[in-house]
Amino acid sequence: MRLRNVKNKEDILSSSRFLVQDPKKYIGNWNQYFSNNHPIYLEIGMGKGQFLIQSALQNPDINFIGIEKYDSVVAKALPKIPHELHNICIVRSDAHMIEEIFQHEIDHLYLNFSDPWPKNRHHDRRLSSPVFLKYYDSIFKNVKEIEMRTDNKDLFEYSLVSFSEYGYILKEVSLDFHSKEIPTVTSEYEDKFSKNGLPIYYVKCIKQ
Amino acid sequence: MRLRNVKNKEDILSSSRFLVQDPKKYIGNWNQYFSNNHPIYLEIGMGKGQFLIQSALQNPDINFIGIEKYDSVVAKALPKIPHELHNICIVRSDAHMIEEIFQHEIDHLYLNFSDPWPKNRHHDRRLSSPVFLKYYDSIFKNVKEIEMRTDNKDLFEYSLVSFSEYGYILKEVSLDFHSKEIPTVTSEYEDKFSKNGLPIYYVKCIKQ
Repeated sequence: MRLRNVKNKEDILSSSRFLVQDPKKYIGNWNQYFSNNHPIYLEIGMGKGQFLIQSALQNPDINFIGIEKYDSVVAKALPKIPHELHNICIVRSDAHMIEEIFQHEIDHLYLNFSDPWPKNRHHDRRLSSPVFLKYYDSIFKNVKEIEMRTDNKDLFEYSLVSFSEYGYILKEVSLDFHSKEIPTVTSEYEDKFSKNGLPIYYVKCIKQ
Repeated sequence: MRLRNVKNKEDILSSSRFLVQDPKKYIGNWNQYFSNNHPIYLEIGMGKGQFLIQSALQNPDINFIGIEKYDSVVAKALPKIPHELHNICIVRSDAHMIEEIFQHEIDHLYLNFSDPWPKNRHHDRRLSSPVFLKYYDSIFKNVKEIEMRTDNKDLFEYSLVSFSEYGYILKEVSLDFHSKEIPTVTSEYEDKFSKNGLPIYYVKCIKQ
């Protein structure tokens, strides 16, 4: 993600009720944060938030949490969240910290257009590497369900193998996700790549 | 496969020592057919035989069996097999019959450019459908190892999910198999599609 400075960044970050200031204190108790027992869907690397916000608008009975590590990006996303929403929040964090933030309470995980980390020596940093799949084991509630979208062929090939070797069963695979119909919820990247005629790769996988 | 009539088809089929005339009699004893205990690799739908023959030439310590249902195609393949080879043979059969031909003696299975059977109501006919995966359970010796190549996106997406749901672990996936290097052994279809700039999809998967 290209980072641009955002005016009033500090003001936005300190004043928005959608940003969770001390996420670690909710570990194991995110249902209390939302004051209900609805399922919790997590997007790691939510970027500017289009996918998360659209999802929250369309699914009022699901709680959506977005994780993003860059302040500037979070500050872009926060003002876009409609004030009336109560099923969405944002956590500023590095993905490596998720074990300290969630504990067996996530129902579904989205990995949308994650950093491909193309160099082999960096493969541990990919959000579909065994390092992260191990983290996810401890944040998922029961059935582990991951949906991934990417425009990066190498990352997609790597991820299919990594998910499978870790025990995930592939339930749906598409090598051109928009070819049949445009999904109702999309990310900014997805719109951009699809508009340019580039295929979007998609996989949904499940581990019991 | 487009079928053209082959002159002297009956002569070729009745005279080639590479065509197994009564394959069912070798069930459970294909090592005796080859007079050795080398691993047996099977290609279902071998077409005109380029992949199978190249494989046999390059791997003298592996026995290769090709299955093909169309007489005309078998008659095209047989004359291409170099006379000196002793690690290759062809079986004329419908794939549905393999349970009556092999029993826990196949080490590796190739599915190259199989018929995609595009209509949903025909999905049971795809060689990667659960119907066939069940057959394969009874022909594989120990570890079940399948390599698939295809130019058909829909068949490939279907197959990844089907393999995974049946318990196969994906070990290697490529969405453009020739992008890094041209494999040393290729099929006729593979050469044609690759020459036309079309991607070859590839998966290798294993089931214990």
